[in-house]
Amino acid sequence: MNGWVAVAGLGPGNQALITPEVSAALAAATDVVGYFPYVARLPARPGLVLHPTDNRVELDRATHALQMAAAGHRVVVVSSGDPGVFAMASALFEAVEKGEKGWNRLDIRILPGITAMLAAAARVGAPLGHDFCAINLSDNLKPWALVEKRLRLAAQADFAMAFYNPRSAARPTQFARTLAVLREECRDARPVIFARAVSTAEEAIRVVPLPDALPEMADMRTMVIVGSSTTRLITRDGVPWVYTPRGAA
Amino acid sequence: MNGWVAVAGLGPGNQALITPEVSAALAAATDVVGYFPYVARLPARPGLVLHPTDNRVELDRATHALQMAAAGHRVVVVSSGDPGVFAMASALFEAVEKGEKGWNRLDIRILPGITAMLAAAARVGAPLGHDFCAINLSDNLKPWALVEKRLRLAAQADFAMAFYNPRSAARPTQFARTLAVLREECRDARPVIFARAVSTAEEAIRVVPLPDALPEMADMRTMVIVGSSTTRLITRDGVPWVYTPRGAA
Repeated sequence: MNGWVAVAGLGPGNQALITPEVSAALAAATDVVGYFPYVARLPARPGLVLHPTDNRVELDRATHALQMAAAGHRVVVVSSGDPGVFAMASALFEAVEKGEKGWNRLDIRILPGITAMLAAAARVGAPLGHDFCAINLSDNLKPWALVEKRLRLAAQADFAMAFYNPRSAARPTQFARTLAVLREECRDARPVIFARAVSTAEEAIRVVPLPDALPEMADMRTMVIVGSSTTRLITRDGVPWVYTPRGAA
Repeated sequence: MNGWVAVAGLGPGNQALITPEVSAALAAATDVVGYFPYVARLPARPGLVLHPTDNRVELDRATHALQMAAAGHRVVVVSSGDPGVFAMASALFEAVEKGEKGWNRLDIRILPGITAMLAAAARVGAPLGHDFCAINLSDNLKPWALVEKRLRLAAQADFAMAFYNPRSAARPTQFARTLAVLREECRDARPVIFARAVSTAEEAIRVVPLPDALPEMADMRTMVIVGSSTTRLITRDGVPWVYTPRGAA
């Protein structure tokens, strides 16, 4: 029996957004590794060993998955969203490089999923319908100065922007600084979308003009999307549609 | 019977990458509208009317879908990849704004899909594992000067970059200019990924250092991804793994 590791994206939360490819990998697995709330989303099955772990132990988790695959297990590492976007795929390759010789020959597959920014964008229209960027606002693994530099250049490039990990209890101030930088660079009332827990029972979405956006509107379960200078609103009952046209204004 | 429009992402080509949400919408539809190669990917079914159209008629196609929904049809507009990323969702909202009064009250849903850059990234590892941008290199709907400005600012921000529509018969020179701009701004040998027809029988992937990248390596079916300054290679048999670490170097 040959072992393998698949790093699989579970999408934003709703089962109907999990690809058949990921479901098939889970059905064939002997072991599932992941942050415990993601592992908890999977139905139990005889013969499947679940290895839920805490947050912020990505490298340990990845190394454990590779060790089991080297020993012949069929291992799925679960991520929310897409595993290649601020999730477990990078951690797995870091573990390959830091790990045992020969791990570069292991059977490793990355199985894409619906990433949070695209699920959130879909709920309000098409705010990422033209050139855009994705920035992880956490400064746990990079200096804040780099985040701020990227924000300024992205605004100057007139990208729409998607922000992952905007705010947590341990990082209460970074998102306030983000909003201040954007107001300084953009100087307009482009829409800001706060999309919390998209596709789950707790989904909550609001759209506010940049001058009215408040840090408290985001938490760790919130995806924040900021339009470009060309992004438009279409009013309707409830949350408006937001879309960025295909061409420049 | 109340009509609706769902703009649905079919993913990069493989059926196993279509979400159950999209499959359910297709099963409930009376009409499918889309560019003919995408419509051709769907199995025929009694009671389902297919409306394949040519390329570059996005607004007409969107207007037709909205007209049918207003008349009570259940219409799926199909896009490849994700409908919100350089695809039909923006065109649909443009058609809502330009169309009849009251279309803002139609039942419109955007159903996300696996977009090309994430499918391509998954095939080679995790090149978009940290901050990145997505740029449509077509200058059909925006001036080339804006594309070039975005390329330079994105390089200065040290984003990894994903390029949609890099090259076509009608636009043979833009991608050569793109590579020249990147060589000038980056001045290193970061990896460039050419991922053609990902997840289909014609899939072909190559990874070359930026100085060796040639315009002829891309066509309209190719997704191009350029690493950031921190992107790393892991050699193995065949195409190497490429990943961008979670933190700054």
